[in-house]
Amino acid sequence: MKEITLKPFEGYEYAEGGVCAAAGFKASGVYCGIKKSPIPDGNESPISNIKNDICMVVSDCDCTSAAVYTQNKVKGAPIIVTKDNLAKAGDKMRAIIANSKNANTCNSDGEHKAQAMCKLTADALGIEPEQVIVASTGVIGQILPIEPVAEAVPKLVEKLDYKGNLEAATAIMTTDTVKKEIAVKFDIGGKTVTLGGMGKGSGMIHPNMATTLNFYTTDCKISSELLQAALDEVVKVTYNCLSVDGDQSTNDMVCIMANGKAGNAEIKAGSEEFEVFKKALYIAMMSITKMLAKDGEGATKLLEVKVDGADSLQTAITVAKSVVGSNLLKCAIFGADANWGRVLCAVGYADAEFDINKVDVKMSSKAGEIHVCENGAGIPFSEEEAKTVLLEDEITITVSIGDGEFSAAAWGCDLTYDYVKINGDYRS
Amino acid sequence: MKEITLKPFEGYEYAEGGVCAAAGFKASGVYCGIKKSPIPDGNESPISNIKNDICMVVSDCDCTSAAVYTQNKVKGAPIIVTKDNLAKAGDKMRAIIANSKNANTCNSDGEHKAQAMCKLTADALGIEPEQVIVASTGVIGQILPIEPVAEAVPKLVEKLDYKGNLEAATAIMTTDTVKKEIAVKFDIGGKTVTLGGMGKGSGMIHPNMATTLNFYTTDCKISSELLQAALDEVVKVTYNCLSVDGDQSTNDMVCIMANGKAGNAEIKAGSEEFEVFKKALYIAMMSITKMLAKDGEGATKLLEVKVDGADSLQTAITVAKSVVGSNLLKCAIFGADANWGRVLCAVGYADAEFDINKVDVKMSSKAGEIHVCENGAGIPFSEEEAKTVLLEDEITITVSIGDGEFSAAAWGCDLTYDYVKINGDYRS
Repeated sequence: MKEITLKPFEGYEYAEGGVCAAAGFKASGVYCGIKKSPIPDGNESPISNIKNDICMVVSDCDCTSAAVYTQNKVKGAPIIVTKDNLAKAGDKMRAIIANSKNANTCNSDGEHKAQAMCKLTADALGIEPEQVIVASTGVIGQILPIEPVAEAVPKLVEKLDYKGNLEAATAIMTTDTVKKEIAVKFDIGGKTVTLGGMGKGSGMIHPNMATTLNFYTTDCKISSELLQAALDEVVKVTYNCLSVDGDQSTNDMVCIMANGKAGNAEIKAGSEEFEVFKKALYIAMMSITKMLAKDGEGATKLLEVKVDGADSLQTAITVAKSVVGSNLLKCAIFGADANWGRVLCAVGYADAEFDINKVDVKMSSKAGEIHVCENGAGIPFSEEEAKTVLLEDEITITVSIGDGEFSAAAWGCDLTYDYVKINGDYRS
Repeated sequence: MKEITLKPFEGYEYAEGGVCAAAGFKASGVYCGIKKSPIPDGNESPISNIKNDICMVVSDCDCTSAAVYTQNKVKGAPIIVTKDNLAKAGDKMRAIIANSKNANTCNSDGEHKAQAMCKLTADALGIEPEQVIVASTGVIGQILPIEPVAEAVPKLVEKLDYKGNLEAATAIMTTDTVKKEIAVKFDIGGKTVTLGGMGKGSGMIHPNMATTLNFYTTDCKISSELLQAALDEVVKVTYNCLSVDGDQSTNDMVCIMANGKAGNAEIKAGSEEFEVFKKALYIAMMSITKMLAKDGEGATKLLEVKVDGADSLQTAITVAKSVVGSNLLKCAIFGADANWGRVLCAVGYADAEFDINKVDVKMSSKAGEIHVCENGAGIPFSEEEAKTVLLEDEITITVSIGDGEFSAAAWGCDLTYDYVKINGDYRS
C-alpha cells in the first residue's frame, strides 16, 4: 500500500485531476527516448503501460507564479534557466516542460539545452521562451540529447488535454513506484477555487528544499508576490520537513502557477482569504510530502514524527527532522521494533536547547498507541501491543518536549534492503 | 577482510599489545552475564571463544589523564560519573572498568550503578572510587543489574595480566565483528615511549564525538593538561571525522591515561617532543578510526574521503564529512558503481563556501586511480577500470577544491543489506 491516507480538513474537499484540476490547465506526456535504450530497463516505473519520459503543462491564459529551488551549490541547468525566466516573465507564465531520465546537470552545455527546451515549447505554443518553466530529473553528468525532445514537443502540444494530468504525472517519475497527484477545492468569497499539483521523487530527498520536482496549478486570482510568500511559508513546514535519505538533490524545485480563472476577487495580503489559500496549499503540499515519504526508495512504511510542546517553531522542526532522519530508527521501524532509545538518542543530538529529562515519547498507528518513554526514561510497555502498532504501514512518533506551545511534523520512511538494492546500482 | 591496512609513518613503529603495550598496564576481561540469556544470542560478536562482557584496565601507578565525551544531550550515567572522577582525581587515575550489553543510560538509577561499579573496582584494588574511569555500552533504557558486576570484579582483578589486552578488547565489543587494538612505539629524548589503545563500535557512529568507547594508555610522562590538549586536537581530525550512519550515541568517550613509566623528561607545551607525541596519538587514533569505519555495521568496504585545496581546515573537514555521510554514495560504493554525481552532489550541499566549478574528483584503491570529474563536470573514464578500482575493499575518494592549502580526511563505509538487517531488530 503505497497510497497515503488523506487527512480530512473542514472546508476543504479533495478532488481528482491533479495538475489539471484547476480551470484552464491542460497537460500531456509522451515517451521520447531520452535514454538510449528504447525499452525501459532497470530502475523504471513499474507502471509499464504509461512509460512517458517528458511532459507539458499549459495554462489557457497568463499566470502569476512562484518557485523555490534546491539549496545545493550544484544546481541543475534547468534551475538556472527557470529562475531567469521567472525573473523576466513571472506574471505571465504559460507552460511547464519537464523530462525524466537525465537531470541535465554537471555537463558541458546544460544551460543551452534547457534554453532550447523552452524555445521549442514556446515556438510550438506561440508564446515567448521566458514564459516557460523547464525542469529535468534523472542521472547527473550526462549530456542531454535534444533531438528526442525536439521530436516530442509537437506530440506533447497535440496531446494537450484538460484531463492529461496522469500522462504528465507519470512522465516525471524516476524510481517512484506510484504517481503523486493531489487537488483540493475550497471557497474564496463565494467562488469555488481549485488548487492541484503533482510531484515526483523517492531518493535523494532531504530537508532544506532538496526535494524533487513539484508543480502546482491553481485558478485562484492571486499576485506572484503573495504566491511566493505562501509558498515560502508552506514549504518550510512540508517539503523542508521531508527526509528520505539525507541527500539533497541538485535539480529540485517546487513551483506554482495561478491563472485567476476561478473568478474570485484578487487575494489581499493579510486577509482571511489569504489564510484560506495558504491552508489549501498546506493541505496539498503536506499530502504530496507524505506521498513522497511513503514512496521513499525501498520504503515499506510512512513515518511521521510529530513534536509538540516546543518553545519555538524552529525547535519543533529541528527535533522532528533529527528523529525522522535517524538511520538507526528507520531500520527499527522497518523491523517493527519499538526501539524508543533510538528516538531519544536522535532527540538528544538535535541542535536545539531543551531539557531532555522532560521528554515524552509515544508511538502510534491506526492499530493503537503505546507510551514508551516518560521524562527522558523508558517506561514498561507491552512488546506485543507495540508490535501490533508498528506492523501498520503508517507510523506516527510523537515527541512531547514540555517547554511551550509550538509544534511541527516531519515525514520520512523506513530504511530497507530495497533502498540499498535500488541505490547500489542506479546508473546501470 | 575487516582488518585495515596500516599506513607506515617514519619514526613510528607499530607494536602488539593494545592497551597493555605501554609499560605498567595490566588488563583482563570475563563474561559475567549482564544480559539475562546465559548463552549469547543474535547480535553478538562472532568471536565465540572469547565472549567477555566486562573488562578492567589497571596501571601499576597513578596516571595523568584526559577524556572527551559525546555531545548528545542524552548522556549515559557512566559519562557523568567518569567526568566527575576526572575532575576530582585526574592526575592520579588508576583503573578503567567497562561493560558491554547494557549502556546504563535513560534508566532510573544509572548514576548510582555507575558509582557502584567504581566503588567495587576501587575496593578490590585498594584505591579510591574517583581513581576509576567507568564506561558502559549496549542497549539504552534498561536497568543495569549490579549483581553480575559485583561477582565479576574479583575475577577481573585476579585475572589482571600485562598481556590481558585481548581479553579486555573483546569484552567491549557489541555488534563489532573484529577487535580493535593499536600500539605505536616512538622515541622521546632517547627513551622509547609506547602508546596503545582499544576501541569498540560499529553502529551509531557519527562526527562530533559521537563515537564509541576508546581507551588509550601510554607510559609517556606528560601532564593531564597537555594530554587534554593533544586529545582535543587529534580527536577533531580522527574520531570526529568518522561516520558510519549519522547517529550520535549517548555513551561515547575517548580517554587516555599516562603513567610516566617510559622515563622520559616530562613533555613541555610547545616543544618538539609534544609534536612527536601528538603525531603518535594521531597515528593510533586514525588507525582505530579506520578500524571502526571498516567494521561499520554491515560494511564490506572502508571509504576514505580526502579533501585538499581548501581555504581552511574547517572547510576541508566539512566537505569530507558531507561526502562520507551520503547514504546514496555509500550505496554506490557497495555496488562498486563510480557514481561521481553523488560525490559532487554531497560536495554541493556541504555547509561551506567555495566554487563548485573548480572541484575535481578522483576515485582510487590499490587497483588504481580514475579521474571522474574536472571543474565540476563529468569527464569520460573507463567504466571497466572504474569497476576494478571500486571492487577493492579500501576505497579513497579525493576531492580537490582548488582554493588553498588545507586538507582533511573523513572515514566511513558502504551501506549494505546487512546494515539494515543488523539494525532492523537489534533489541531482540
